[in-house]
Amino acid sequence: MAKKYTIAVIPGDGIGKEVTPWAQKALEKAAEGVADFEYENFDLGAERYLCDGAILPDEELERIKKTDAILLGAVGDPRIKAGILERGLLLKLRFALDQYVNLRPSKLYKGVTSPLANPGDIDFVVVREGTEGLYCGAGGAVRRDTPAEVATEVSINTAYGVERVVRYAYELAMKRRRHITLVHKKNVLVNAGDMWQRIVDRVGEEYPEVTHDYQHIDAATIFLVSDPSRFDVILTDNLFGDILTDEAGAVVGGVGYSASGCINASNEYPSMFEPIHGSAPDIAGQGKANPTAAILSAAMLLRHLGFDDAAARIDTAVEADIEELGSTVRSTDQVGEDILARL
Amino acid sequence: MAKKYTIAVIPGDGIGKEVTPWAQKALEKAAEGVADFEYENFDLGAERYLCDGAILPDEELERIKKTDAILLGAVGDPRIKAGILERGLLLKLRFALDQYVNLRPSKLYKGVTSPLANPGDIDFVVVREGTEGLYCGAGGAVRRDTPAEVATEVSINTAYGVERVVRYAYELAMKRRRHITLVHKKNVLVNAGDMWQRIVDRVGEEYPEVTHDYQHIDAATIFLVSDPSRFDVILTDNLFGDILTDEAGAVVGGVGYSASGCINASNEYPSMFEPIHGSAPDIAGQGKANPTAAILSAAMLLRHLGFDDAAARIDTAVEADIEELGSTVRSTDQVGEDILARL
Ligand SMILES: CC(C)[C@H](C(=O)O)[C@@H](O)C(=O)O
Ligand SMILES: CC(C)[C@H](C(=O)O)[C@@H](O)C(=O)O
Repeated sequence: MAKKYTIAVIPGDGIGKEVTPWAQKALEKAAEGVADFEYENFDLGAERYLCDGAILPDEELERIKKTDAILLGAVGDPRIKAGILERGLLLKLRFALDQYVNLRPSKLYKGVTSPLANPGDIDFVVVREGTEGLYCGAGGAVRRDTPAEVATEVSINTAYGVERVVRYAYELAMKRRRHITLVHKKNVLVNAGDMWQRIVDRVGEEYPEVTHDYQHIDAATIFLVSDPSRFDVILTDNLFGDILTDEAGAVVGGVGYSASGCINASNEYPSMFEPIHGSAPDIAGQGKANPTAAILSAAMLLRHLGFDDAAARIDTAVEADIEELGSTVRSTDQVGEDILARL
Repeated sequence: MAKKYTIAVIPGDGIGKEVTPWAQKALEKAAEGVADFEYENFDLGAERYLCDGAILPDEELERIKKTDAILLGAVGDPRIKAGILERGLLLKLRFALDQYVNLRPSKLYKGVTSPLANPGDIDFVVVREGTEGLYCGAGGAVRRDTPAEVATEVSINTAYGVERVVRYAYELAMKRRRHITLVHKKNVLVNAGDMWQRIVDRVGEEYPEVTHDYQHIDAATIFLVSDPSRFDVILTDNLFGDILTDEAGAVVGGVGYSASGCINASNEYPSMFEPIHGSAPDIAGQGKANPTAAILSAAMLLRHLGFDDAAARIDTAVEADIEELGSTVRSTDQVGEDILARL
């Protein structure tokens, strides 16, 4: 008998609303016969905020907590001041659900043109810490808007928080090409960097098959452009992971092909899966957003719930679709239908 | 009569020692008849540290303070733990000499192959704040090396420090294509980001000819790859500037063509000029390091001292050299001689 799961769906804003239905359809079809999904829709994001001022009411957060996983579209609107929805909704979900692994695969698909002249084989995963660092919101300002203003931002890093994501990266590396690159800036951020390096070294002793090296964040941005195929698992903190994954998205031909998971790997709370692109107000409502990244996020969700075969079916369908039709201009629905037809 | 200047020369380590003499020779030749340079050599860097444990003795710092400008090669050696020379020497100089503008031009020269398939015309300058942010060294650790360890890094940002570098960027933009892109992460680092944005907006009112826009650091790393010619002046904080300029170096075909200035724009202390590449221990001693970036740093030094024509002569010679011979394999000395012959 097929297992039952409740999925929280947060389509969000702009193209988020257009691509999320395709993620759901792909989920359904790929998991037919093995999993039964029920959906609970949450109207959260810029539109909701502009309408009734709510960002993430406690009661809704509690309902989300009870689901098995979350599908997120994209959130954001230029009319809203930077930080409000990010801190009030996206980061609040990551922190409240203790999603400490931010998992971001980057792959250059056959049929996609990279902006690099000689991209090589690009296939790596960034394991980004998701609940610490500069994202804690531990900063402040005094004498705001005067010549004597001082503003601080505090990066908080704990052995507890770092070790669990480091362990995740090693486990993941064991299933891949068994190489980890720690990225930090330990020559300047000596306290946090030194702790990260020590924990990677120590946990690494338990994984003798996995090699690991280290790069400063500045050097890593160079190698992503000059030699991206050297990477297998990139392990890094919250802010550096944010930066590297966007650059990686560019290098593999655009964020339209990149999905991401905010994962609570101890399964106390639901994990969240989303395309890494934003709500793209400039093309919203025109039916031309590419749903591929959203569909790939459905595959990540399936893999997280243990449905590796169903996930692989989506990955294979997407890969075939891009290889064959990636360079043609298609509507959102056309791409969705083409991929679904292969499932 | 030619004016007299004292230049502190810190060749440093590895290829730093090989390229710095060419920077000096270019300086001499370009400024013949208009400026007289005397050099004071400082033996600082990894070799000195490994030899007698000294990093930057107070007495030497005081002597450096009395010079008119500094030429730096490159510093570093893998035998030394990350952070020691960076914080003890490089950052100490930037902070002690209050070098609040870290100026980093990026230009794709004719004759250089960019790793990008369609690079377009790349010609922008990053104005990076140099004395604040996460580089203050204001962090700490408790319960080091225990499971309860906590490590922090604190980014300190002041209106005083931000405003002066913002003003510099506007003045620079007036001499260029009159566009500033502020890069930050104001949707997450809301305290510092908001202050930067307010100051850019406010100072911008005094420069109605200069347009300005804003990008998050993650988005900026995408545009550096997908559309780098959109940038004119990029204005950003210490850490984001570190990251963006290395990525920019990659995009214009390698850090071998990028120079940088650590500038005290109020001239209370000497400013410092250096290639952005490191000491490159892997190729040191083989006479194959490219001295172009070091020679370009001499041009920046000349421009800083007010010798715009002499600086332009170096820039023109370098440009012609790269266009004609950039793709040939040449020794350090050969490149140096070829460029000097054009001066
Ligand atoms: C929207 C923003 C808060 C977020 C982040 O910085 O993590 C985004 O850039 C991402 O990468 O998911
Ligand atoms: C060596 C290091 C301290 C330095 C920095 O981070 O500023 C370097 O990367 C640079 O960009 O000049």
